Amino acid sequence: MTDVTVLGLGLMGQALAKALVTGGLGVTVWNRTPGRAADLNDVNESATAASAAAASDLVVVCVLDYAVVTEILDKVDVSGRTIVNLTNGTPRQARETAARVEKAGGVYVDGGIMAIPPMIGQPAATVLYSGDADAYDRHATTLSLLGRSRFLGTDPGEAALVDLALLSAMYGMFGGVWHAFALTAKANLPRQEFAGMLVEWLTATHAMVSRPPDAEVVASAEMQLAVYPNLFDASRDEGVRLDFVRPMYEMMKEEVATGRPIAELLRNADEQT
Amino acid sequence: MTDVTVLGLGLMGQALAKALVTGGLGVTVWNRTPGRAADLNDVNESATAASAAAASDLVVVCVLDYAVVTEILDKVDVSGRTIVNLTNGTPRQARETAARVEKAGGVYVDGGIMAIPPMIGQPAATVLYSGDADAYDRHATTLSLLGRSRFLGTDPGEAALVDLALLSAMYGMFGGVWHAFALTAKANLPRQEFAGMLVEWLTATHAMVSRPPDAEVVASAEMQLAVYPNLFDASRDEGVRLDFVRPMYEMMKEEVATGRPIAELLRNADEQT
Repeated sequence: MTDVTVLGLGLMGQALAKALVTGGLGVTVWNRTPGRAADLNDVNESATAASAAAASDLVVVCVLDYAVVTEILDKVDVSGRTIVNLTNGTPRQARETAARVEKAGGVYVDGGIMAIPPMIGQPAATVLYSGDADAYDRHATTLSLLGRSRFLGTDPGEAALVDLALLSAMYGMFGGVWHAFALTAKANLPRQEFAGMLVEWLTATHAMVSRPPDAEVVASAEMQLAVYPNLFDASRDEGVRLDFVRPMYEMMKEEVATGRPIAELLRNADEQT
Repeated sequence: MTDVTVLGLGLMGQALAKALVTGGLGVTVWNRTPGRAADLNDVNESATAASAAAASDLVVVCVLDYAVVTEILDKVDVSGRTIVNLTNGTPRQARETAARVEKAGGVYVDGGIMAIPPMIGQPAATVLYSGDADAYDRHATTLSLLGRSRFLGTDPGEAALVDLALLSAMYGMFGGVWHAFALTAKANLPRQEFAGMLVEWLTATHAMVSRPPDAEVVASAEMQLAVYPNLFDASRDEGVRLDFVRPMYEMMKEEVATGRPIAELLRNADEQT
């Protein structure tokens, strides 16, 4: 027996296994295509998912998607084991997988890794968990080797929901940031200096995030709308595409036209055009 | 004569005038529709833009848009005066207005206010300037009463360009943040707690902003693309519209299809569909 098994040795799975070994644990690994454990010292590589899972009470799964998760769990005896699934997926997938594992006599904890592989094992890597609270508590010390853990409750879908929400905020920010870099590509301002201004500005403005998004704002949608023609004209003058800046303009126009705040409009997918 | 004239008394113009009065300066004000100076103590209200501008060597303009700026400057003798125009506009508009003021014997400084009216006069309010460097230096002490000043060079369009770029980054971030709030509206996690996580997460990730956006990333576009079906499915399950999250997905698909990074695709408006 080893302390923990890692199923899946993509870049992330390898980073997870490495952090667990570094933490002094006995680690069994398995990957669908063999040979991925070559760079990992002091791990036991199993030939099958079933034998790998059988080697530890705690089984961490980190693969491409839930289709692969399902395929693996089909071949594994989860009875009496704790499955910690760190594969990116939807809350619904997490809940379905939890039900399936529990029906087969195992316990299930879902997780969302808010980090890229090189960050694993460092405090900057946050890993969100939800699902079976007892199992989480039992393995908290082991899981803390992966990064800073945060348990969000017993709904196995909660970690996936918060994971995807945080990613959507980041993607939105990156879209805006890329537009900003493109717009200033030919400016006199050195890129590094502009990057510093951007970080300072986003830090100052994302403090507003802690306000509910439907709170009354000092700068009204009408006022913001007056800025957009300038942003569009300047972007066209600089030859920059409007893909990332158009949706906010369309939503602001809709807010002004309907009198309903964007936050409320967003939550009604049925009305989407 | 007074020390400074403020043309335009919208919410922002009023905040500017108030900060200048608080700084101990003699301030003349004018607004197209009178009565807006009622809440301002110790200012001289002029009946016309021309008489207001004639009262000070330094004339600060802050109105809705450049159409109004042009209309006002038509009626004002700018000769020998410094015009500091803080109206939101495009780099092209700023350059055209600079040329026009200089032709009429005045000097021109353009500015972009990175703040909302309640922040004016505080260090958290950054005001970007560009244009005539001597005039900026001469009035730097006065302008420092409005917030933290930053002079970006002698191209009068530079402040407007950087202003719009910073705004585009903020709008992108807000779009992502609003999607994130909408997605977690029915989650168990209290909103304030999620807001705290969001701020922490955006702070951690916007450090990546200081990398050039076309640098090689550890998480490739192909990997990111695998996340999007999950984000879309979860959003549909929660009844949340995809307006803010779709553009990044479309751009990532285009990056994978063309092999050209998004940063490069963005800078080629001609190819936009």
